[in-house]
This record gives sequence, C-alpha cells and structure tokens, in this order.
Amino acid sequence: MELYDAMSTLRAVRRIKPDPIPEAVLDRVLTAATWAPTGGNHQSWHMIVVKDRALKQGLEDLYRPHWMGYIPGYEAHMKDMPPAAAESSRRALESGTYLATHMHEAPVICVFCFNPSHITVTDAEQPRVSVVGGGSVYPAVQNLLLAARSEGLGCVLTTLLCMEEPAVKKLLEIPNEWHTAAHVPLGYPVLGGHGVINRKSVEKMSSVDRFTQ
Amino acid sequence: MELYDAMSTLRAVRRIKPDPIPEAVLDRVLTAATWAPTGGNHQSWHMIVVKDRALKQGLEDLYRPHWMGYIPGYEAHMKDMPPAAAESSRRALESGTYLATHMHEAPVICVFCFNPSHITVTDAEQPRVSVVGGGSVYPAVQNLLLAARSEGLGCVLTTLLCMEEPAVKKLLEIPNEWHTAAHVPLGYPVLGGHGVINRKSVEKMSSVDRFTQ
Repeated sequence: MELYDAMSTLRAVRRIKPDPIPEAVLDRVLTAATWAPTGGNHQSWHMIVVKDRALKQGLEDLYRPHWMGYIPGYEAHMKDMPPAAAESSRRALESGTYLATHMHEAPVICVFCFNPSHITVTDAEQPRVSVVGGGSVYPAVQNLLLAARSEGLGCVLTTLLCMEEPAVKKLLEIPNEWHTAAHVPLGYPVLGGHGVINRKSVEKMSSVDRFTQ
Repeated sequence: MELYDAMSTLRAVRRIKPDPIPEAVLDRVLTAATWAPTGGNHQSWHMIVVKDRALKQGLEDLYRPHWMGYIPGYEAHMKDMPPAAAESSRRALESGTYLATHMHEAPVICVFCFNPSHITVTDAEQPRVSVVGGGSVYPAVQNLLLAARSEGLGCVLTTLLCMEEPAVKKLLEIPNEWHTAAHVPLGYPVLGGHGVINRKSVEKMSSVDRFTQ
C-alpha cells in the first residue's frame, strides 16, 4: 500500500471480529514495528502478542471499569457541544463501549512494553510530565498501526490499561524492570474499518520559525 | 512510495545538505504528520518549522555542547566492543558530530511541541518514568520521518535539545504551557541517505501471551 494512502486513512477501529489473523499477515505487521527508530538504536521495547482467550478476557476485565468510569464525564461534556459534534462524540463513545465489552474477541491484543534503563530520558529534569521515553516506543506502535491498516486489519492505540499496570504485569508475567506503553487490539473490522479521518489542517498544526497558533 | 519499503529503509540521516526543500514537498511531509492518531483525537501538538538561519544556529549552539559532552563516555564504551561493532559505533559518532556542527545548514529543523493539559497521561501515577504523553506526539513524528524518507529527504529524530528546553522555548517563543518533544533536521542527504537498517528480529522483539526474551 502507498505510504500516504495508509497514513491518511488510518482510523481508530474499535469494533473487531474474532476471525483469526493469518500468521504471515501478523508476522509482517510485527516486523514493521521492529523497523522503527529508537534512541541509540537500543530497541529497548518488546511486544507481547496476546492470543490466549483467558488472558485477553483478563485485559478486558481490567480495562472495562476504567472506560465505564469515563462515560459520565464524557456525556456531560457532550451536552455543551453543537449537535454535529455531539453526534460524532456519541458514535465514538458507542465504539469505545463496544471495545470495552468485546476486547477479548479480538484475535490479538498487542501489548507494547519498554525498559527505561537503556533509554536516555533527556526531559527527565524538566518541571513537567516526561514524554521522551515514549520517543523510543511509540514510533514502533505507529509502524504497527500503519502496517495493520495496509493489511486491512482494524486497530486502535489505547493507553487506558497503563492505569492498571501492576495487574497487567502480573497477568502477562512482565519483569519488574519492564513497563507498559500501549495496548493495541488487532483484527478484521466489524464495520467499514479504516477510511476518512478528521484532522486539523497543517496551517493550524504548524508555524514557521516561532510558535504561533 | 510503498509503506513497507519506506519503513524498512528509514535510517537516521545526520549529514544534510543546505539545499532548500520545495514548498510542495515540505507541505506533504508536514501534512503526513497531522494524520497521526492522538489521545481523544485532541491533536495537542504543534510543529515549529525553523528555517531562519540565526534560529537554526541558535539551536545548534544549544545542541553542540551536550553532544560533545557525550563523546568521551561513548569512546570509552567503544573500547570494550568487538572490532565490527566498534567500527559501526565510530561511524555513528562521526555522523553525530557532523550533525552537531552542521545542524544550522539543514534547510529546516522541525521542532515538535506538545501541550499536556489536553492529554490524559494514564501512567502518571506509576512509580516509573512516564511515557504516555509521548503517545500523542511521537506517532506524528514517525509519520513525518516516513514521509520525509518517501520524498528523498534525510532526517533524524533527536531529543537531546529537551535538556535545553527553557532556552529553546525562549528562542522560539514557545508559550509556558507548551513543551518540546523532538527536534528533526530535514533536508537532502549529503551521502547515500536512507537504505539498509540494522534491527533485531521480530522473534527477539516479541513473545506470545507472556513476556519472554
């Protein structure tokens, strides 16, 4: 698939069929992730390809209460929106609830882990939340998403399970020094899957020489 | 360009010619970044496209001392390496030093900023360095790198300037509530540019159902 076609049609697909992913397809998607750049080319990240039904159900059981707790605030926020935006948000909410109650059906949940001991976190001393560790794992996640899109697989980048990291580490036997960065359900889409995306223009997202918005 | 071809040949290109980037090419590369997913589709990030010579020199002047300070430890580490690995590291060191002394020559340095107030940092309470904020900016950086590669532009994801964030914010007039995540020099390569990459296999980078290495 052409690069710009893949990028410009990569949607968050939250309704995923239980149909299995052929091994050759899955292998291509995972391999694409390994190609991503990392600081010092250390590749201090790891994918757990969760296929076991009980483990996927375990992840869903940890995810669902957080999603359900999120709904009331989301619905309150929707009341202040113009009708078109509220309708779009209602659809996003429905697909989120579908994911929170069907996650175990996805043939694969790909859990991205990282080990910060080999990552130089250059913003560690700044007086704000650190993000630079993510620079050595989220490029790999994005490669995986783009590869999944090109293979016709639905997928969505989620991070909600980071709130349950200790339980996820126990469930998937993740060593102490490794942590979790993203959880990506993967599989064939129930509905239309990828397609038109809604993003701000490059004029709104960038400025020349100095920061202006 | 085909997606897998772009991903599998995206190298860190640190020697960049001063030749200008045609506006249409630059616009395609920046637009590709805007297509990336972000938490809640908030797109709480911003690119500063630094073209002004004095500003680029200012960024290089902030970058260079950190790179130079990094060299002695790197050289000491190389002494313990097998000859082939030491040779490869020596070349990486040379290209890093080239970047640190020629960064101002790149026609563009793209500075990625983010505003955490609209990002749900789900790992903020975990007893380890946070990365999740990066999940809403580094996918955009990776899109930009892949697009640059497909347009024949050299590029490299750097984060060293995050150590000088207060000075960078002053130089580029970045508001208090915005911070920096990556600095990507962009331009046509001096040498061969992108090509063969060296990465661990998917077998080493992944495991099924549980974490094993």
